[in-house]
Amino acid sequence: MESFFEVKRPDEVFEIIDRLISPTGEETVPLSAAVDRVMARDMKAPEDLPGFFRSTMDGYAVRAKGTFGATEGLPALFQVVGEVRMGRPPDMVVKEGQAVKIPTGGMLPQGADSVLMKEYCHCLDEETIEATRAASPLENVIGPADDFRRGAVFLTKGHRLRPQDVGVLAGFGITEIPVFKKPRIAIISTGDEIVPVDHTPLPGQVRDINQYTLGALCQRAGAEPVFLGLCPDKFEPLKGIVEEALARSDSVWISGGSSVGTRDLTLRVFESLADFELLVHGISISPGKPTIIGRAGSRPVVGLPGHVASALVVAEVFMTRMISLLSGYAGRPRRWGTVVEAELSRNIPSANGREDYVRVMLSEGENGLTAVPVFGKSGLISTLVDADGLVRIDINAEGLYQGQRVKVILFEHTEGGLL
Amino acid sequence: MESFFEVKRPDEVFEIIDRLISPTGEETVPLSAAVDRVMARDMKAPEDLPGFFRSTMDGYAVRAKGTFGATEGLPALFQVVGEVRMGRPPDMVVKEGQAVKIPTGGMLPQGADSVLMKEYCHCLDEETIEATRAASPLENVIGPADDFRRGAVFLTKGHRLRPQDVGVLAGFGITEIPVFKKPRIAIISTGDEIVPVDHTPLPGQVRDINQYTLGALCQRAGAEPVFLGLCPDKFEPLKGIVEEALARSDSVWISGGSSVGTRDLTLRVFESLADFELLVHGISISPGKPTIIGRAGSRPVVGLPGHVASALVVAEVFMTRMISLLSGYAGRPRRWGTVVEAELSRNIPSANGREDYVRVMLSEGENGLTAVPVFGKSGLISTLVDADGLVRIDINAEGLYQGQRVKVILFEHTEGGLL
Repeated sequence: MESFFEVKRPDEVFEIIDRLISPTGEETVPLSAAVDRVMARDMKAPEDLPGFFRSTMDGYAVRAKGTFGATEGLPALFQVVGEVRMGRPPDMVVKEGQAVKIPTGGMLPQGADSVLMKEYCHCLDEETIEATRAASPLENVIGPADDFRRGAVFLTKGHRLRPQDVGVLAGFGITEIPVFKKPRIAIISTGDEIVPVDHTPLPGQVRDINQYTLGALCQRAGAEPVFLGLCPDKFEPLKGIVEEALARSDSVWISGGSSVGTRDLTLRVFESLADFELLVHGISISPGKPTIIGRAGSRPVVGLPGHVASALVVAEVFMTRMISLLSGYAGRPRRWGTVVEAELSRNIPSANGREDYVRVMLSEGENGLTAVPVFGKSGLISTLVDADGLVRIDINAEGLYQGQRVKVILFEHTEGGLL
Repeated sequence: MESFFEVKRPDEVFEIIDRLISPTGEETVPLSAAVDRVMARDMKAPEDLPGFFRSTMDGYAVRAKGTFGATEGLPALFQVVGEVRMGRPPDMVVKEGQAVKIPTGGMLPQGADSVLMKEYCHCLDEETIEATRAASPLENVIGPADDFRRGAVFLTKGHRLRPQDVGVLAGFGITEIPVFKKPRIAIISTGDEIVPVDHTPLPGQVRDINQYTLGALCQRAGAEPVFLGLCPDKFEPLKGIVEEALARSDSVWISGGSSVGTRDLTLRVFESLADFELLVHGISISPGKPTIIGRAGSRPVVGLPGHVASALVVAEVFMTRMISLLSGYAGRPRRWGTVVEAELSRNIPSANGREDYVRVMLSEGENGLTAVPVFGKSGLISTLVDADGLVRIDINAEGLYQGQRVKVILFEHTEGGLL
């Protein structure tokens, strides 16, 4: 089966993905499960935060005016008229010349407008202190709405929740968080040579690697893989499993067979689906050219290349974007932090008219990172295991030169600790 | 309670953490739950991968020798003697001058040593092809151990599993993966002013923010938070809950109260534990100075500052490292990808002898990223919500200058898509 469909450039594929995909739906999760989920709505502050004036230091609540001009040599005297207890509204009123002992986080008593740090106060007796520095109004105090004013949007739809964002939701007492559903990605492996991972392959057979590689990539990207197992290279069974997959998921990915026959079969099955539209049939990248992207109704359906390295590169470059959009994520696409700069260790040739993704290892030297290409056939997974990331060679470039600064798209998971 | 314990420099604190902490134990997980977990053992290849010679192209399996010298003008002729079926060992033997049709992934028949791509073959009739290019031995073929040789270590202890690593385990049929246990971190909030998140605070009270912020940070870093709820600022209840926490977790973090009294209480409770050793009592950083780190037996116990921003900065800088080590992670600490370079938008002063962590927002301009400091008191969480990351000011520096290139430690989660 010959196709006259034009091979698409990567930028065209991104445009198609961006246009095609919308979030999969909304649900609520408890606060303790909200991190890394994507907000489904703008969140407005239901009240001022903080709700009252609080001290940020251990010290004495006073009227700032009474401290003006105070120095070591000429301290200001205050009469101590009480102490603020944590978690209770103080019942005293601070008048001129008076001070109330206050702990960090304590509620400022009426009449006071600032807190003198205890380091700048000497106790003369039980009831008298002298201040050796002036305090300005609101010094060492946080007040209503210093964090957020009632009604202000404090988190926006499409934002992925970080620990501090979860903290603000807690601060407002919002315990059921409206987030977008995690997209469910159905993964189907095809290929008459593929056996389940717990089988011992006979000669000519191999275990199903792609299902697990792609499933892990989905999990990392915030999606839920739905494993539908293996399917032989036959039209009816594959169509049956794809229809089941469409009923159970938000996107269907077929992977496994790398022969032309398998790829044609995938396309034929897609074309037999109700309301199918073929959007991408081949991408001008290497590895990964024989990629199919279409839609069945509103659901993206994808035929990934069979070679394991090709499938993972396509998934890393294009499918993570698809998952982000299905997840409702509206922030900037991958730019900060998932890419590092490195110096290329050797020339890499590339064909013009094709975007190449070269696997590289990173090593650290005196002048920063060096990217060392890992060459190897796309059917081998060891090239990916050895690599730390991918270097993209532009579609119009004829290669990259030794010593050139390149950007490396990291496979790496964030690790904590020293810089 | 006065302490004569010396405030530690950040590098000393990292050394203490690195010396103190060892992984929490081993378990096995199924392949589908292995991504992002840390290998507890070196993994040796139980067999060669691939296990047999396979074609990487659709074409014809031949003896390369017979193609030598073949060109468009002077093609080499081959007799087609059969076809390789996917997933089955071919039963024919390829002799000189013979060819066998083979799909991508098919097993190379005996006698053949290379595959001619079908693009370079013309079918003259059902049984005859001509090759218009020479093939070299092993061309378009991957063979046993091209990925991994039997007995070779293919994943090392302490490695965090990426999708491709999960794929290799699948390729070897290893379905129960020995990984380090996820560390359980007990989080206790103290402070008489703190109320549970689902309560409406009375005047002087605030909701428990830190428990959720720290719990989310633990989850992101690969740990399981164990929430032990709130505890009043009293010795006996706090000691009781800490002892329960030690029985149920691998590390205990106390957070919440920010007053000197609460901090002293935390230390007194720690000092009353069996086999306790105080290791850090104050770190020369801002925010985050009043941090306590010790050990109760082999378990790290931590008193975090009460101010929400201080607690999160200390957790981001030091506690993520602790979680990595408890998780058995043996790779490089945070360097690649979690840090980006940016140009500072304005001067930031800093006190000598203290390492400052300044919250910054990133904005993108023509010359790359600009880091704009977000100033605000440590009791406010909005400064963290507005910020994209932290800039460290060295302990010996007196500040940073406008226009200076700085490194920004990102709060950011990896997002997929366009560069």
